[in-house]
Amino acid sequence: LNRQLAALPTTIFTVMSELARQHGAINLGQGFPDTEGPHDIVQAAADALLDQRNQYAPLTGLPELRAAVAHSNARFQRIVVDPESEVVVTSGATEALAASLMALIEPGDEVVLIEPLYDTYLPMVRQLGGVPRIVRLEHPGWTLPRQALAEAFCARTKAILLNTPMNPTGKVFSPDELTFIAGLLKQHDAYAICDEVYEHLTFNTPHLSLMALPDMRERCLRIGSAGKSFSLTGWKVGYVTAPAPLAAVVAKAHQNLVFATPPNLQRAVAYGLNKDERYFAELSADLAHKRDLLSAGLRGVGLDVLPCQGSYFVMADITPLANGLDDMAFARLLTEQAGVTTIPASAFYEPSNGAPPTHLLRFAFCKQESVLQEAVNRIEAWH
Amino acid sequence: LNRQLAALPTTIFTVMSELARQHGAINLGQGFPDTEGPHDIVQAAADALLDQRNQYAPLTGLPELRAAVAHSNARFQRIVVDPESEVVVTSGATEALAASLMALIEPGDEVVLIEPLYDTYLPMVRQLGGVPRIVRLEHPGWTLPRQALAEAFCARTKAILLNTPMNPTGKVFSPDELTFIAGLLKQHDAYAICDEVYEHLTFNTPHLSLMALPDMRERCLRIGSAGKSFSLTGWKVGYVTAPAPLAAVVAKAHQNLVFATPPNLQRAVAYGLNKDERYFAELSADLAHKRDLLSAGLRGVGLDVLPCQGSYFVMADITPLANGLDDMAFARLLTEQAGVTTIPASAFYEPSNGAPPTHLLRFAFCKQESVLQEAVNRIEAWH
Ligand SMILES: CSCCC(=O)C(=O)O
Ligand SMILES: CSCCC(=O)C(=O)O
Repeated sequence: LNRQLAALPTTIFTVMSELARQHGAINLGQGFPDTEGPHDIVQAAADALLDQRNQYAPLTGLPELRAAVAHSNARFQRIVVDPESEVVVTSGATEALAASLMALIEPGDEVVLIEPLYDTYLPMVRQLGGVPRIVRLEHPGWTLPRQALAEAFCARTKAILLNTPMNPTGKVFSPDELTFIAGLLKQHDAYAICDEVYEHLTFNTPHLSLMALPDMRERCLRIGSAGKSFSLTGWKVGYVTAPAPLAAVVAKAHQNLVFATPPNLQRAVAYGLNKDERYFAELSADLAHKRDLLSAGLRGVGLDVLPCQGSYFVMADITPLANGLDDMAFARLLTEQAGVTTIPASAFYEPSNGAPPTHLLRFAFCKQESVLQEAVNRIEAWH
Repeated sequence: LNRQLAALPTTIFTVMSELARQHGAINLGQGFPDTEGPHDIVQAAADALLDQRNQYAPLTGLPELRAAVAHSNARFQRIVVDPESEVVVTSGATEALAASLMALIEPGDEVVLIEPLYDTYLPMVRQLGGVPRIVRLEHPGWTLPRQALAEAFCARTKAILLNTPMNPTGKVFSPDELTFIAGLLKQHDAYAICDEVYEHLTFNTPHLSLMALPDMRERCLRIGSAGKSFSLTGWKVGYVTAPAPLAAVVAKAHQNLVFATPPNLQRAVAYGLNKDERYFAELSADLAHKRDLLSAGLRGVGLDVLPCQGSYFVMADITPLANGLDDMAFARLLTEQAGVTTIPASAFYEPSNGAPPTHLLRFAFCKQESVLQEAVNRIEAWH
């Protein structure tokens, strides 16, 4: 058996969701909405099923979805994209990430990662023989340590993997930070894999894609997610936008990993991406409101809530309540005793890169207001 | 860029389907039905969409689908399976294959492949650092060369990748051949990845899974496909059945490759797998009839049609019509001039393993009878 893979723990999201189920806890762990996405998009998917869209889609995606992704790049980021040659539809952003890494790296290539990091990044880089170079954001404030980042780049650097809006921190990288990163990419002739699945989920802080910066058009693979943009996380429809020579290699990775993505879901996502400004504005306004509600509630019970500019997630410092317990132990207690499930933030750190912080929990606020309120009530009643 | 991947040609299926589109040709190339799968299964998928089944499915699949896969193993192959720990649902058989290879092999491990071979096998093995050992079936008759197969196994052999019913040959491996392979696996302590996507598409020759043979239960990863079993190839729902310790590692590969598969499609496939004997009997009877129709027609125009016991495909020897052209050139001509698209069989061979046969075309017969008849008429009118 592949020892590296066999040694990999089951993802923390599955572990905590399972624990939540066992204890009937409110699940503020795994990042998925507890309401449905727009009914018209769901209906479009059902209509497409019944309209004979059930055989293989083209390898790189339905033309109508590739066109919608290209249009969306122009509309939201002023990135001009050829839908024929510069868009690859994937079975979710996880596959998009795997295919992008596979397209870029060869054994021995270095990949710069920013910590705290999403849990598939590191194993996927290692699986492909890549060498991770991890730069840790400074806490509190999640400041990008520019000197450390610059030092992580070298002649062997193939790419940086950049997640903005960022999971689990809720950080949205600033234009100034992105410009700094762009400079490093040019200096070291490197690429960026831009995981922008939360691109539409920002709160008063506009999301800027690294790909939209000068000279970055040819160096970026930009990943989007229908699941996150339309609150339909189960659909697993993602898309990569990349310059044609890169997109062609991503398509070849996709060819051997999955080959194609269900056409009825693709058709519905194409419809969704063409929604007007109001849809996207309401999506983020609704989430901003939920963030505020949960943050206020958690502050009310004595937790120290960190700022959050985007994504589904807010981090909280548990020190005031934890009685010296670390995040893992406290998260377990919170599920078992209070009936509220979260994700311990240390799960987003690689221990060999230095002791992780153990005083932070990640709360998902993409839940109904009544559920968020009930979670706060439960913590209050418990502690 | 990853040079190995960048050098990979676009899959022959996409190339020929594209050519078919350009010339308005009847597409007997890529293996997908031109009619829909059972309406009640499609309706079940639409119902599930509208019934709030649109957030992440569990990592290894919906419990109801895992139960149906386990039940199907018992029902059709007398393999007793624990649905909790021995089934992993994937985004199609292509992902099942990628995840299974990823779970088993480490760089330097040898994998035995049987030629002619499906076009993702070889690049996927190489991508993971595996060393392919290719054994070529003897033509005509697609006899398994037992001595050559035995010699392909050695102490470094990690697995054999076995496709039965086999694409592109239509061969169904006999119990005697499977017993011989089982002996080699025991002798060399190796595994088998059993690509059995055409398990329900056999014609008077029952399909036996290698996994059902004595002592093979713990050595096999058995891959099935809802797309092929229900004529819904676009859905991309596959499943791996494997002993628990292996299934656990496949799940970890799946975690990083795709993570989860659309829940509405999973629910509909669970419903489909529980269909009665009649459904599966009619599916293969219908295809047997189509095979017969196309075979007779191709013989009528002078081609030498090979026997076919299963799958969507029949091979034909083009020597009588090809005027010395090779399969690639003849397939192109057939699309452009006759308006009928096929797959040149040499695409299923690795040239470095010896010159491939160039006198065979693969015809997909999973098409409406009128379409098969029209294809025959077109060839007749043309030649
Ligand atoms: C793919 S399961 C995890 C969902 C998610 O993005 C998260 O909770 O961080
Ligand atoms: C995944 S596209 C190819 C479909 C198929 O199995 C074939 O035509 O051989």
